Amino acid sequence: MATDCIFCKIVSGDIPADIVYEGDHVIGFRDINAQAPTHVQIIPREHVAKISDFDPSRDTAWLVELFQAAQKIASDEGLDKGFRLVFNNGALSGQSVLHVHMHILGGRQLSWPPG
Amino acid sequence: MATDCIFCKIVSGDIPADIVYEGDHVIGFRDINAQAPTHVQIIPREHVAKISDFDPSRDTAWLVELFQAAQKIASDEGLDKGFRLVFNNGALSGQSVLHVHMHILGGRQLSWPPG
Repeated sequence: MATDCIFCKIVSGDIPADIVYEGDHVIGFRDINAQAPTHVQIIPREHVAKISDFDPSRDTAWLVELFQAAQKIASDEGLDKGFRLVFNNGALSGQSVLHVHMHILGGRQLSWPPG
Repeated sequence: MATDCIFCKIVSGDIPADIVYEGDHVIGFRDINAQAPTHVQIIPREHVAKISDFDPSRDTAWLVELFQAAQKIASDEGLDKGFRLVFNNGALSGQSVLHVHMHILGGRQLSWPPG
């Protein structure tokens, strides 16, 4: 846990969030600035700053569970017509919290380009 | 291999592409409708239609390598200031080819929402 990380504090329960998925390695909670009818952030419980820091020898369990969580959330939210998954990495992408998070957006037509 | 799948034909070499990454389980090639100075699609060699079909018992090797490939491409393309990774899944997301692909976009400021 990084003591100054808002997402670590959501994992620990020190900051409240609207949690929609809790698993062994990841949690999912609604984005407070939702950009679609369903907009959830799925994060590893472990603190890893950026997806560019992904290390297979350490991080494979949570990577796999990110996608299992996305499937579960898509099913729970009725996103059978489609959804988009997004990782931001670094300043030019607008990454706002330095703790890996995968956005899942659905419930409306999503346009192209993706930002 | 799905015989009617354009991405399977890129994997097999039957359709040309500007390939920038070749690994054991995935390849990466430039998007022919690039939406950013760097815009590459990273795909598993195996035919899986949608990321919602991801099955950990079958697909973990290529999932892990998608992210290793993204790191390598980001490094090769000088995307140290940032990049975005995107999966589309289904009609509402605009998924245009039914073979899993992860977009990596970089080289410009990316806006929000992501489509």
